[in-house]
Amino acid sequence: MKTQVPPLVLTQGDPAGIGPDITALAWQSLRENAAFSFCVVGSAQLIADRVDRLGLNIPIASIGHAGEAAATFAHALPILDNGTTAPVTPGQPDATHAAGVIEAVRIGAERVMSGEASALVTNPIAKHVLYSAGFDHPGHTEFLAELTAESGVLGPDSEPPHPVMMLAAPSLRVVPATVHVPVTAVPGLLSRALLLKTCRIVARDMAKSFACPNPRLVLAGLNPHAGEHGSLGHEERDIIAPVVAKLRAEGVDIRGPLPADTLFHDKARTTYDVAIAMYHDQALIPIKTIAFDRAVNVTLGLPFVRTSPDHGTAFDIAGSGTASPDSLIAALNMAAELAANRRRAMKQ
Amino acid sequence: MKTQVPPLVLTQGDPAGIGPDITALAWQSLRENAAFSFCVVGSAQLIADRVDRLGLNIPIASIGHAGEAAATFAHALPILDNGTTAPVTPGQPDATHAAGVIEAVRIGAERVMSGEASALVTNPIAKHVLYSAGFDHPGHTEFLAELTAESGVLGPDSEPPHPVMMLAAPSLRVVPATVHVPVTAVPGLLSRALLLKTCRIVARDMAKSFACPNPRLVLAGLNPHAGEHGSLGHEERDIIAPVVAKLRAEGVDIRGPLPADTLFHDKARTTYDVAIAMYHDQALIPIKTIAFDRAVNVTLGLPFVRTSPDHGTAFDIAGSGTASPDSLIAALNMAAELAANRRRAMKQ
Repeated sequence: MKTQVPPLVLTQGDPAGIGPDITALAWQSLRENAAFSFCVVGSAQLIADRVDRLGLNIPIASIGHAGEAAATFAHALPILDNGTTAPVTPGQPDATHAAGVIEAVRIGAERVMSGEASALVTNPIAKHVLYSAGFDHPGHTEFLAELTAESGVLGPDSEPPHPVMMLAAPSLRVVPATVHVPVTAVPGLLSRALLLKTCRIVARDMAKSFACPNPRLVLAGLNPHAGEHGSLGHEERDIIAPVVAKLRAEGVDIRGPLPADTLFHDKARTTYDVAIAMYHDQALIPIKTIAFDRAVNVTLGLPFVRTSPDHGTAFDIAGSGTASPDSLIAALNMAAELAANRRRAMKQ
Repeated sequence: MKTQVPPLVLTQGDPAGIGPDITALAWQSLRENAAFSFCVVGSAQLIADRVDRLGLNIPIASIGHAGEAAATFAHALPILDNGTTAPVTPGQPDATHAAGVIEAVRIGAERVMSGEASALVTNPIAKHVLYSAGFDHPGHTEFLAELTAESGVLGPDSEPPHPVMMLAAPSLRVVPATVHVPVTAVPGLLSRALLLKTCRIVARDMAKSFACPNPRLVLAGLNPHAGEHGSLGHEERDIIAPVVAKLRAEGVDIRGPLPADTLFHDKARTTYDVAIAMYHDQALIPIKTIAFDRAVNVTLGLPFVRTSPDHGTAFDIAGSGTASPDSLIAALNMAAELAANRRRAMKQ
């Protein structure tokens, strides 16, 4: 039997993707040796069917409360069954799955906010499938912020939660200040207010979730060579440098703007705890280059811990037995670690 | 004595930077074992002074014609002395050096175009020092294109040379389609014509200089997830995809647009010979992350081979004895290899 801390809750993700496959494999890998347990929010029938298809011998246990997961986890994969029974063909996404997928995320978030579970881990979803069902968020991150706001929880600044995406790997943590927007939109979205808010959330969550009370932050420039003294762009001078100056005056250990191209080699990475990039690819290129399949997506700025594997639904290999659970296992391990850090921080 | 192929010609770069330091160290490293020789275009007095300052025992030999370098190289560092004698303090850039720096590049290019030397290697310059002397190019690359155009040499398409910057390391070659411009300017600069021209030059020079007659090219998308079916930007659909289709129809082995973040991990890099990125950091982040100090800057699209180390003048360590010649040595080795490939290609 596992320790008495609440389990993690894992959403099933898109049922036609690899979520069910890697969920079963992750349980198989973690059931005996992990210091934590998890339960799945989703369809018990779906998981049982996928386990059969993969030729695995994995018992499924339907549970009604996440608290039952700890006692179950060593011998069966515990499922908080949301009762969805729409037929699923692996590799064939279908709009009829959308409601169940969205509902699983909602239930997972609720169970964590109520304290029944200790952290949320989400399997990949396919936004285009959900869009057709009226889902209007760019992804999990924004949907979770809305769910949190709906619940009435406010951030430490008494404002609604501002979700911040971090990618974390053993040798690098990166945060893109803007995320899923076209490159043309990036310069217009960058503002001192956005960067200040982002950096403060990063610093706060590094202390609370990562047990790193005085994190060393660096900010990348937007432009080549961080603008090269204004000759290659002015955002460094007008937006980024003033933010660094303000935060330094507040005692934050932060440097920048620094040229992004020389910020991520082995030696450079030892000089900071988190690099804050200005846009998606500036953050994701370095971490996926050095830690493909080992990076975990962590949402900062929420009142609870949320992680996810850093890959998509991979419809092309769903049900084939070739999907690797490594990134999901890394996400589960990190969620457990961050939740434990937060419990310790709250006791202090 | 070295083989009878013409030597490489190496410009001294900014005299207050590390160019003279790494030039001396590169000669010391290459004099006995390299299959090629090189001579320096610059001030013999400057190099001799720096050698003294560093406490090195390196004989200097002034020569009048690059052809003398081969016989000299094993026992002395050959210098095509341009006669500049402006006083130099390492670490203190000075506008009075600008004319000599620019002249050395001009002389170097001329000696290569005349056939007296086989390739041009350039030490780092500091653009802001040269700007003050009326130099109006973003860097070496554009200046060399102008020098080539002035010489009347046309490209294979009967147009003036279009220089294309490549960064090459043992495990990755990248080409940014746009280079030293602010991020705001990138989308407006991308066009089908620019990408077609760039890809054709890359394919041609891969065959001619890199002995890779059917190179596998990939094009990155501009936007996150390569635009995600148009929901995160339209440049992929409107500009990049049509270029890929056109070039494939012409028989070029090219794929894309592909999401940039998953294009550079170990396994992905084995699937292509050159990745063409849309902007500076998209190309330079991955190569400097995995091959910092080992990447060589190669200019494609010129009628001759030109390489340079992938670092700057490093004024802060000039004359200190701590500068590493590794990137310059890589640039010299690569220039010799590319020049040899071109000689073979021309004989065929």
